[in-house]
Amino acid sequence: MTGQAVLGAGATAYGRSGGRPRELARAAIELALEDAGLSGADVDAAYCSYSLTGLITGQESMLGQLALEEAGIVGIPITRVENACSSGSSALREASLAIRAGACRRVLVFGVEVMSTVRTEVALRALAGAGDVDEEAPLGMTFPGHFAMIAQRHEVEFGTTPEQRASVAVKNHAHAALNPKAQHRHPVTVEQVLASPLVADPLRLLDCCPISDGAAAVVLGTDADRGRGDVRLLACELATGSYDDERPLTRFDATAVAAGLAYEHSGLGPDDISLWEMHDCFTIAEIVHTEDLGLCVKGDGGPYVASGATRLHGPKPVNVSGGLTAKGHPIGATGVGQVVELTTQLRGEAGDRQVEGARAGLAHCMGGFLHGDCGSTTISILARA
Amino acid sequence: MTGQAVLGAGATAYGRSGGRPRELARAAIELALEDAGLSGADVDAAYCSYSLTGLITGQESMLGQLALEEAGIVGIPITRVENACSSGSSALREASLAIRAGACRRVLVFGVEVMSTVRTEVALRALAGAGDVDEEAPLGMTFPGHFAMIAQRHEVEFGTTPEQRASVAVKNHAHAALNPKAQHRHPVTVEQVLASPLVADPLRLLDCCPISDGAAAVVLGTDADRGRGDVRLLACELATGSYDDERPLTRFDATAVAAGLAYEHSGLGPDDISLWEMHDCFTIAEIVHTEDLGLCVKGDGGPYVASGATRLHGPKPVNVSGGLTAKGHPIGATGVGQVVELTTQLRGEAGDRQVEGARAGLAHCMGGFLHGDCGSTTISILARA
Repeated sequence: MTGQAVLGAGATAYGRSGGRPRELARAAIELALEDAGLSGADVDAAYCSYSLTGLITGQESMLGQLALEEAGIVGIPITRVENACSSGSSALREASLAIRAGACRRVLVFGVEVMSTVRTEVALRALAGAGDVDEEAPLGMTFPGHFAMIAQRHEVEFGTTPEQRASVAVKNHAHAALNPKAQHRHPVTVEQVLASPLVADPLRLLDCCPISDGAAAVVLGTDADRGRGDVRLLACELATGSYDDERPLTRFDATAVAAGLAYEHSGLGPDDISLWEMHDCFTIAEIVHTEDLGLCVKGDGGPYVASGATRLHGPKPVNVSGGLTAKGHPIGATGVGQVVELTTQLRGEAGDRQVEGARAGLAHCMGGFLHGDCGSTTISILARA
Repeated sequence: MTGQAVLGAGATAYGRSGGRPRELARAAIELALEDAGLSGADVDAAYCSYSLTGLITGQESMLGQLALEEAGIVGIPITRVENACSSGSSALREASLAIRAGACRRVLVFGVEVMSTVRTEVALRALAGAGDVDEEAPLGMTFPGHFAMIAQRHEVEFGTTPEQRASVAVKNHAHAALNPKAQHRHPVTVEQVLASPLVADPLRLLDCCPISDGAAAVVLGTDADRGRGDVRLLACELATGSYDDERPLTRFDATAVAAGLAYEHSGLGPDDISLWEMHDCFTIAEIVHTEDLGLCVKGDGGPYVASGATRLHGPKPVNVSGGLTAKGHPIGATGVGQVVELTTQLRGEAGDRQVEGARAGLAHCMGGFLHGDCGSTTISILARA
């Protein structure tokens, strides 16, 4: 049996619940264990991800230990992994490597973030800590600024329109309306997106993912294990940007590098993938990723999404969970939550948002943004055995 | 050949240099690569550790990427590992697992912290983020408070004296005086320690490690590699506390658990170890660790260190680098720096502080403190092949 077994998966609702990070994490841990039919005594290691909690609450370290203790789990090795918005998927990767190395057999991976308990300016300042705070943030090059530049460049090079970008938000909100755990469960129209306040020209409020609280967890087993629905993690790869000044702003090489590795290691190709979860921190991001992941050729991402091809019942469903845009983006939880969504889909348990006949799914996460390029990109491929 | 090869090792001086974390990290990276006779193009992955940088500078994420870019290294997978004061050793463990899993062959592990650039109160508040900021820090249970309780309990149970605790500081300052890269290179006397200001009764200023800046790096290779001096990483283990209310305050079970695993996996026993680097964040900590690691029986740590047994030329040399107390404790760098020291010693290149005939060394790191117990303890064993 190829690939490690996803034994259990669970996530809290994403939203603005507030609360203590350790309690939110505990809720996700308990859901994942219950889903796996396991108790805390059955896992022999844990990896935890969070990113902004230190800046938001002062609890820089040990949140994983506190969450495990809340869940009654003590004495197992636990390691925090932090790679900005790809923290959760990077934690999954470390868990996968630890199992492959023979250091453990059943690993709990969980991610959490609580961002709504502070003023939005404080959360935004914390988010800027995933960029270069010395040299870029003081110039206004925070995340909306970076992606606004990408959107402007994509307009100039390929003629991508505001309406095409808006169609990403429309699609993902429509998907989120079918996801009981999504943050923004109301459909939106192209007109509503275009009428929402300008954040960083040309990106508007509904082009941007929200401030979110949430937690997600999975239990990963060995190649020899077999979880309910027999969902396997076939590959989990990490790549970083080149920070090459000559690189076009409209392409993320790290996405292609990580995807190439993930296809190679999984033995699957793009045509085998039934659904994609992509890092749509902004609508333009999903358009770029759709191109970089090969769903369409470079430059065609705008018309492609506007055509409906990436809708739930289209040929290439993207972000059927609602994505970061509408499901929400609790930073440390996001990468783990994508895997929870793929597991649910591959088991055929996604209800109204089920991708029919889903056999394999790809999760793509991007963390950090430096010098016009991403700092950390992960790609995971999961499939039914 | 058993054990992964330490191909290169290097560290900056520890002290209050200030400066930008990325530049300090770059200096350590360059020293380690130069020591290994490698260039940045020769490493295929990196693990980075820091803990307080987010709280101190706002740069919560991507410091590893920024440091690598400073060193001219781009495009390799990089992951930040954070486990409070054991962040560096936890990063080493992830690197070791990644190599064992076959994901990479030559991995750069580096740790960094800059703590002196903010007011001491700010640094202390950041340090409190390695405890429970919701439930314990507001009661005054920060690190000096926790270890003061341990010291008081050790006095009551075993009759440990202030003079015996002071002898740890005296020994480690004497060692640091022989280490050109140590922070506190001046010898101190028992009288000076006892006359230093009270921090948390009964711990005095010279019982405590200082606020430090510094960076350290190692290049880890596969079992098949062979670095200069042929130093091998035989084991790198992680354990967490039990948070058991019934547990005596004067013992850290996680130290014994991690050490047991490290001895088992290395095939070495305590009698094979030529020198120990231990997590002497406070003098009482070294006394407790000396007992928990089996250098003497429980309760005898005070008289044992006062006897001189753990001095440089004693039978069981402990913290010949100067330890956290006198070499310094730049949080994210500490665990990596311990391995740099062991590598230097095992190669026979430690100059005035050389442990004669050193064949094997053990590094012990403790991260976080919750509910009277440690959150994360690592033990690494290195040896000459």
